[in-house]
Amino acid sequence: MIKTIYFQDDSVMLLDQSQLPDRLVYEKCNDPAQVADAIIGLKVRGAPLIGVTAAFGLALGIKNYRGPTEQVDQYFQATCKLLASTRPTAVNLFWALERMEKTYMIHRHQELESIAQILMAEADKMYAEDIAINRAIGDYGQELVPAGGRVLTICNAGALATCGYGTALGVIRSAAARGKIDKVWACETRPVLQGARLTVWELMREGIPVGLITDSMAGYTMQLGKIDLVIVGADRIAANGDAANKIGTFSLAVLAAYHNIPFYVAAPLSTIDLSIDNGGQIPIEERHQDEVRQIAGTYLTVPDVEVFNPAFDVTPQHLIKGIITEKGIIEPPYISGLEHIKTKTQG
Amino acid sequence: MIKTIYFQDDSVMLLDQSQLPDRLVYEKCNDPAQVADAIIGLKVRGAPLIGVTAAFGLALGIKNYRGPTEQVDQYFQATCKLLASTRPTAVNLFWALERMEKTYMIHRHQELESIAQILMAEADKMYAEDIAINRAIGDYGQELVPAGGRVLTICNAGALATCGYGTALGVIRSAAARGKIDKVWACETRPVLQGARLTVWELMREGIPVGLITDSMAGYTMQLGKIDLVIVGADRIAANGDAANKIGTFSLAVLAAYHNIPFYVAAPLSTIDLSIDNGGQIPIEERHQDEVRQIAGTYLTVPDVEVFNPAFDVTPQHLIKGIITEKGIIEPPYISGLEHIKTKTQG
Repeated sequence: MIKTIYFQDDSVMLLDQSQLPDRLVYEKCNDPAQVADAIIGLKVRGAPLIGVTAAFGLALGIKNYRGPTEQVDQYFQATCKLLASTRPTAVNLFWALERMEKTYMIHRHQELESIAQILMAEADKMYAEDIAINRAIGDYGQELVPAGGRVLTICNAGALATCGYGTALGVIRSAAARGKIDKVWACETRPVLQGARLTVWELMREGIPVGLITDSMAGYTMQLGKIDLVIVGADRIAANGDAANKIGTFSLAVLAAYHNIPFYVAAPLSTIDLSIDNGGQIPIEERHQDEVRQIAGTYLTVPDVEVFNPAFDVTPQHLIKGIITEKGIIEPPYISGLEHIKTKTQG
Repeated sequence: MIKTIYFQDDSVMLLDQSQLPDRLVYEKCNDPAQVADAIIGLKVRGAPLIGVTAAFGLALGIKNYRGPTEQVDQYFQATCKLLASTRPTAVNLFWALERMEKTYMIHRHQELESIAQILMAEADKMYAEDIAINRAIGDYGQELVPAGGRVLTICNAGALATCGYGTALGVIRSAAARGKIDKVWACETRPVLQGARLTVWELMREGIPVGLITDSMAGYTMQLGKIDLVIVGADRIAANGDAANKIGTFSLAVLAAYHNIPFYVAAPLSTIDLSIDNGGQIPIEERHQDEVRQIAGTYLTVPDVEVFNPAFDVTPQHLIKGIITEKGIIEPPYISGLEHIKTKTQG
């Protein structure tokens, strides 16, 4: 299984996903600022992985901290703030930073070296937990996939979006392991092409049958009867079940509803944000206009055309047939189901 | 107004749209085979323009014919067949070739030079008629655009898709001339990017406000309340009103219906094919897989991934609020309206 992130000596090594599938390259980050830049620049992406990466970045910062002892607290908070400012939509980022902060607050009076070890251990623990969570999501979710299943997905909610195994692709992996996958249709996922670059690469490496379409072809592919179900990841799920995910996901949900095709979201509990009532309160990141104007540095259009470039959209809960978590599949009404599973299982 | 096609000496000059917006280059075609290649290679595209281009190609062939006089008929038929084989979906191609054939059959016993002149005059007439038709479409259609109108479109149904003025963009032009356009949102239109490359360029040249989004952003843009109506072109409309158009159009129609946004098709009567009952009978062209795998010759994905690349889809008639033609706007039930307008005004 490919490693998306690991500690090596005094550095964090990140798989630079912006170079896939052409090159398999790791970026060596020596400080949290480099980690933050890697998140901003989409070298590391995917809600669960962003969270764990920020945790690694924090631990790295403390491990390499050489300033005055009385300023460690201040440095820790500033680093949290820096990492939290990288991307606004995926709640896993804030969840992971809060968890690291809790750990720090408990141990902050210890020796710096000891704190660093504890934080690194906590990040490592989150890494291992994430893989276990994804396997559980996969095991629950695969029951939804019929024999000969033809699944549509968007973006990459795979091993590359997580610490391993994946969420939506975790379900597909588990179904494939049981011989139930006839075909995965990957939407290319403009503008950053995570579907074409990452999902196709990840599934082909494992011999899971995958076909590529442009995002605009999803509706017609459904109309032709080629899709049994849609499974996507999520960046943040509100208390009522509204789910933010990669731009284009909402369109797929509307198209799936029109064709009476079940539409599922696969995500860990850490993606559920009970602090907000509905999707209208999820901040939607808008990224640089050149992401749409260009591919691989080449302009596809008139260079100064106005562009609207939201990185995510929100799928209203009524279009979602189920949310696949590591504790089971939650079905409507989400308003009670999500709170129950989250408070009951996490205390 | 930019010329998409014209005769010059013994050649047909075609604006090579595959090079826009980077370069404004005309390709000189000396024989019908070159014209056919230009259509196949998408140097010339857009249903109305493909039809007129085929007519120019036929006239060119007869003008430059130097073979035995007794084989002109055979050459004419073979050239028709060659041009008809270029692309299967847009019915305007077959319509234009049939019209040229009728003209040829009436005059075939005249001197070759005279036949050539008559065919060139007929092609020129179709060219001029197409512009007049588009202006009429624009005048009828603009009434549908509210003041401050925000219009979504896909692909390029503009001056570049026709002999001038455009169909969907003709409506937008007419509305803009009356000061009613606040914004045109152009879907980039993967895989060939006619929206990003052509529609953006065409509208910016004329100062009509345009914004660019990826196809995957249309749903979210509608959800935000940024769209008042959707207007698209068509490549073939069946007797029941089902309309084939660029891949992605069907998805826009489903999304528009979900948001209660009116969805209109703008097309000349020559796009209506009363010989087929419904959209299921429209042949949908599938193009080379590399159109999806690559942009500008660079692979975006694993080079040997399987691809599904339909160039068009069919929007069912119940999702279409009206069909804007040069004889007026047809509303449901289309089954009677289309036959009436087509037979009454052309027969």
